[in-house]
Amino acid sequence: MAASVKYLTGDGAAIKDFLDKFDVRYFGALNRSLHPPGALADFDDLGVLWSGDHVFEGVPETLLLLRSKGKRIVFVTNNSTKSRQDYVKKLTAMGIEAGADDVFGSSYSAAVYIARILKLPPGKDKVYVIGEAGVEVELGAEGVPFIGATDPAFRRDITPADFAGLADGSLLDPTVGAVLCGLDFHINYLKLAHGLHYLRRGAHFLATNTDSTLPMHHDLFLGAGSCSVPLANAVGAPPLSLGKPSQAMMDAVEGKFQLDRARTCMVGDRLNTDIKFGIEGKLGGTLHVLTGVNSKADWEAEDAIAVPAFYADKLSDLREGA
Amino acid sequence: MAASVKYLTGDGAAIKDFLDKFDVRYFGALNRSLHPPGALADFDDLGVLWSGDHVFEGVPETLLLLRSKGKRIVFVTNNSTKSRQDYVKKLTAMGIEAGADDVFGSSYSAAVYIARILKLPPGKDKVYVIGEAGVEVELGAEGVPFIGATDPAFRRDITPADFAGLADGSLLDPTVGAVLCGLDFHINYLKLAHGLHYLRRGAHFLATNTDSTLPMHHDLFLGAGSCSVPLANAVGAPPLSLGKPSQAMMDAVEGKFQLDRARTCMVGDRLNTDIKFGIEGKLGGTLHVLTGVNSKADWEAEDAIAVPAFYADKLSDLREGA
Repeated sequence: MAASVKYLTGDGAAIKDFLDKFDVRYFGALNRSLHPPGALADFDDLGVLWSGDHVFEGVPETLLLLRSKGKRIVFVTNNSTKSRQDYVKKLTAMGIEAGADDVFGSSYSAAVYIARILKLPPGKDKVYVIGEAGVEVELGAEGVPFIGATDPAFRRDITPADFAGLADGSLLDPTVGAVLCGLDFHINYLKLAHGLHYLRRGAHFLATNTDSTLPMHHDLFLGAGSCSVPLANAVGAPPLSLGKPSQAMMDAVEGKFQLDRARTCMVGDRLNTDIKFGIEGKLGGTLHVLTGVNSKADWEAEDAIAVPAFYADKLSDLREGA
Repeated sequence: MAASVKYLTGDGAAIKDFLDKFDVRYFGALNRSLHPPGALADFDDLGVLWSGDHVFEGVPETLLLLRSKGKRIVFVTNNSTKSRQDYVKKLTAMGIEAGADDVFGSSYSAAVYIARILKLPPGKDKVYVIGEAGVEVELGAEGVPFIGATDPAFRRDITPADFAGLADGSLLDPTVGAVLCGLDFHINYLKLAHGLHYLRRGAHFLATNTDSTLPMHHDLFLGAGSCSVPLANAVGAPPLSLGKPSQAMMDAVEGKFQLDRARTCMVGDRLNTDIKFGIEGKLGGTLHVLTGVNSKADWEAEDAIAVPAFYADKLSDLREGA
C-alpha cells in the first residue's frame, strides 16, 4: 500500500504539482488536545502546527505562502472544550493569523448540525449538554437553547431526591430534544443520569466527538468519548459524532464553506481521524505530516485504518514547491 | 425452545421432583439494585425476593421450608455498593434470616478473587478502587490493601497539577497492581484519570460487574459498567468482571462453598445475568421466576440470551411441593 503514498519532502516539482491540485480549500488538523481548566499556558498538544506551546519552525510562513497562492485554510479540530474564539487567540499567540471563520471545532460543528441540519421542532428544541464552555459558546452563537454544561446546579453529587425526580420525570425539562456530549472535566453521576433519562424519553444522541483518549503532557488522558460511552453502553446505541472522522462534520463543513471537495485537501497527523476523515469525505487529497501521532509504519501495516495520498516530513516542507 | 422449559407452578409433583434434584446448594439473585447514598429506606429493586422494600408474599416461609429440607441458600448479587453485612441487615428487615456467609455480592467476589486467585505479588499488591463503601469493606475483610474508593482526596475536580503529576507518574502509587471498578455515585474525571494511568502502567483491570444499567424506582439508572467502560474504551480491552454472569464469580463461589455444581440450582429473574450465570457455570439447574425483569416471551424469542430449565410464577410456588 505504501507505494501509492507520494512522498513530497525534498521534491519541489512534486510539491508544486500538489499545490496546484488544491487551490480552493485546505484543511488542517488544528490539534486534538486542550488545556486543563484554568491553565491556558500549561498544555501540551502536538500535530500539524505545534506541539504544546511550541509552534513548528516555518509553519506560520508556510500558511502565509499558501494563502498568497489563493488557498483558503480551515483549521479543523475535535477539541470541544474550546470555542473558535479561544482558538483564534491560540493561533494568534503562535504567530498564525486567523479569524473565527477559519476555525471549525467539533463544538461548532455540533452547533451547526443542530441548528441547520437537525432542526429540532419548536417545544422540543432544547439541548441537554454534557461538556465545557466551548460547547456553550458555540451553541449560543448558533442560537440553540441548552441546559447543563457548566451550570453549577449539575456539578454536585446525586441525591435521593434526584433519583426519584428523574424516575418520575419531575426533574426533567420537557423541551429537551437532544443530548450532546463533549469532553467534560466535571463529569459526574448526576449529569450522566440526566443524559440517560432524556435519551430514554426519545432525545437525539449526539457527541462533539468520540475520541477515547486525549493526548496531553506527552501522555494520554480520557477523551470526549469517555463522557458519551457510559450512555451509549446503557441505551445500546452510539451517538452521532460531529467530529472527525464523522462525515456529519464534513457535511457541516461543506454546508458552511460551499467547498469543492475534489479540490480540497485534508492535512493531518492522525490516520484514524484526520486522514480517514478526508478519505471518507471523498476529498481530492489527504496529506499526512510526520510531526504528530502516526508514522509511516502505521499506514504500511496490514490493518492500516487509513492510507494518505501524500506525506511529508513536516508542513513547512511545502515551501519547497513555492 | 420453550417446550424444554418445565413450568412448576401448580404442579406439586413436578416441584417435589425439582426440590429433590437440588439438595445441596441453591442460589438466589438477591437483587440487582441498591439505594442512593444515605437513603436506605428509599430504594427500589425487584426480582426474586422483593420489590423495593416489599418482600413478596410467602418468600420468608419458602426459604425456611427449603432450609428445613437441608438446602443451603446463598444470596448472589451484583450490587457492589453494599457489603455482605449491609445485605444481612436488609434480609433481616425483610423477615429473612441470614448471616454474612449466606451472601455473595460482587464486591466480595472481587475481594475473594484478588486475595485467593489473582494473588498480586508483594510490592505490587495494592488495588486502586473506583467504587463505594461496599468494595472497601469487602477488600478490608480479605486483607487486600487499597486506595481510592470513598477517599475524599479523590472526590474533587482535576487540576493542572493533577494532569502533570499523572503524566510524570509522581502522583501514582507504585505499589498499585490492579484497578477495580464498581458502581461509584461519585465518579469523576480525576478518578478515571488515575484508573487510566494505572492501567497504562500494567495494572490488572477488574470490575465488580459490568451491568450497563441499574433498575431503581421502577426505572433505569447507570450501572457499574458505566464506571469501567470509559477506561475499557481508552485502553481497548474490557475488565475481567467478577459479577454475574462472569464465571470468575462462579469460581469464587465454588472456592468458598465447595459446592457440587450438579446439585446446585441458580434461581433468578434475569436471563442475561442470573440464568446465563447458571447455565455457563454448568449448574444442575436454573429456575426462572416471573416476579422480576424477564418474562416467558424473552426466552421464547429467537435470539434469547439464555433459556432456563425450570420456571415458576413466583418463588413461593415451591411450597406446593412440600
